[in-house]
This record gives sequence, structure tokens and C-alpha cells, in this order.
Amino acid sequence: MDARERLITSTQALLWERGYVGTSPKAIQQRAGVGQGSMYHHFSGKSELALAAIHRCADQIRAYTEQRLSAPGTAFARIEAFLLQERQVLQGCQLGRLTADPEIVANPDLHRPVDATFVWLRQRLAEVLDEGVANGEFAVGLDVNDIAATIAGVVQGGYVLAKAAGSDEPYYSAIRGILALLAPPTRQ
Amino acid sequence: MDARERLITSTQALLWERGYVGTSPKAIQQRAGVGQGSMYHHFSGKSELALAAIHRCADQIRAYTEQRLSAPGTAFARIEAFLLQERQVLQGCQLGRLTADPEIVANPDLHRPVDATFVWLRQRLAEVLDEGVANGEFAVGLDVNDIAATIAGVVQGGYVLAKAAGSDEPYYSAIRGILALLAPPTRQ
Repeated sequence: MDARERLITSTQALLWERGYVGTSPKAIQQRAGVGQGSMYHHFSGKSELALAAIHRCADQIRAYTEQRLSAPGTAFARIEAFLLQERQVLQGCQLGRLTADPEIVANPDLHRPVDATFVWLRQRLAEVLDEGVANGEFAVGLDVNDIAATIAGVVQGGYVLAKAAGSDEPYYSAIRGILALLAPPTRQ
Repeated sequence: MDARERLITSTQALLWERGYVGTSPKAIQQRAGVGQGSMYHHFSGKSELALAAIHRCADQIRAYTEQRLSAPGTAFARIEAFLLQERQVLQGCQLGRLTADPEIVANPDLHRPVDATFVWLRQRLAEVLDEGVANGEFAVGLDVNDIAATIAGVVQGGYVLAKAAGSDEPYYSAIRGILALLAPPTRQ
């Protein structure tokens, strides 16, 4: 990997572990094994590096989510696959954790791609839920936008509960709960 | 308020806004209007102050949650009251946000009361759900511990979605979704 790429992946990892406030340009350089001069050759500073890292995270999240949500199968099975895909539960969501960072929330350039990714996720979940309603998998009359927000919320909140417990158990418990509530009647 | 009390409430506010990593002893002193000597008279340092602030948050969360969950009414109505109580959605959960803080997660003394509060919350929600199952409000066969984790998760994740959006709308959308999924059949 070249220096620019190492700087981006190191920033991704540090933002995930320590957040934006807790990540220094020096720590990024050390983790990337890149000198200060080279870092400032590629990026104007921490904020531009963070922007590149956030876009990279967002692209990855969209790619693996889309893989599950556009797979063959029922709407329920695709949502189940999305919820049960392999995750580093105790590390949580690379983008979700940034919402706890006051400097991210206060910086529109850094905040925008985080917002856009969650808007996209809720929209895609709502589309899949709509297909499920049309297929008779879910009760007619459910507001698919609300249920999509609930599903996205359970994932993010499951991470919070898991981190609080120091165990991934509450995450999987919360996921089993939403799947039981969503499950088509024939599966209950 | 005396100096000790001002130090605790100032630490609560700073932990909520900036997290543990982002809060300095100096910032606590300034917010509390208390000198360094007085701070170290009352507390050995930032970690002891944070512990007092976390216990205070936990006590407040338990008190207002218990008020809703032990009120008269159906299990559904009490859970609905818990979910729809007035909240500072964009500020999120005082304890939940600390789970994004690597120094909290790595410090067992600070981590333990955060964990204990979520364990308690899930337990209380499960007890109320159990009453609802016994009353015929919810489907028999639902795992109340899983549904309790789902409900606690939606609240925490709703905050994350709201912060990502810079709006409390996704929080209330996620809450409407879980309430629609939980609602007793006669209400659907």
C-alpha cells in the first residue's frame, strides 16, 4: 500500500477506536508509518484525512449492505441476512460511533457523509420492506419508513448495549427480538 | 449549590457533551467555577469525578424510567410512556454515549455502573413485557428478554440516527416503528 492509502486506512482504524476528538495527526502518522511531510503532501490536515476515511467507511458499509439487501430471497430473509451478517459487534459501527463526537457533529463536511449513509440505509430498508408488504410477508398498514428506522436503530443501539455489557450478547438478543416481531405469521 | 455538587453536575454535562476523552480537569473546574485546589480537595482527579457523575446519571435514569414503567396501565401503555417521555434526543443518552469512549470501556470502575444500568433497564422492560404476555397483550412465545433488548436498543440507536441526521425525526420514526410492531392486535 502506498502512503496515501496507509494514511486513509490508519485514520479509519483510529476514528473507529478513538473517535475524531481522540485522534491526533501524530497518531495517524505513527500508525501509518508515514512522516509528517508526506502526510501534509497528501492531505491538508486531520479534517481532510477524516473526510477521506469517512467516505471509505461509507462506501464499504453501502457495499456489504447492498450485497445482503439485493440478494435473492424474501424480504424477510434479506433483512435477516443484513442483521445477522458477520460484524465486529464490540467495535460497533464505524460511522455510528462518530455521531458521539462533538467535532464531527459540528463540522458539516464531516457530518454530511455520515448523515447520507444512514439516509441511504433507511431508504433501502424501506424499499425491501415495501416489497415484503407487496408479497404479503408483512402486515399491510405498517409504515415501512418507521420500521426501517426501527431496524437501523436496533443495529446501532445493539452496538451500544454490547459495548456497555462488554459482550456481544445484548446485540444478538436485540436482533433476535426485532426478527421475532417482524417475522411473517407463518414463521411465528 | 456547593462546590462538590457543582463539580458533579459540571462533569455530568461535559461527559454528555464531549465524552470522557474530550473532558479535561481544567474544563470541569472552569464550568463549575471551582479552583484546582478545591477540586482536588473533593475528588482525587478526573476519574473519581467521572465516577460520581456516572452514578448520578444512572440514578436519574433509573428514577424517571421506573416512574413510567411502574405507573398504572397496561404493559403496552407503560412501555409507550417510557419510549415517548420527553427526551433531549439530539443530546442522546448520558450513559449510552460513554460506550463510545475507549477510556471508559477500558476502565472497569467507570464501565461497571454503565453496564449495570443497562442490565437493570433490560430486566425491568422484560418484567413489564412478562406482565403484558400474562395479560394477553402480546403474543405468547415471544422471548421477553430479546424484546426488552430490542426496545432498549431502539432508544439508543434512535439517538444515533437522530445525531447522524441532525434532527430528532429518525428517533421518533424508530419509536413509532417499534410501537407498531409491539402493539396489541386490537390496536393495529
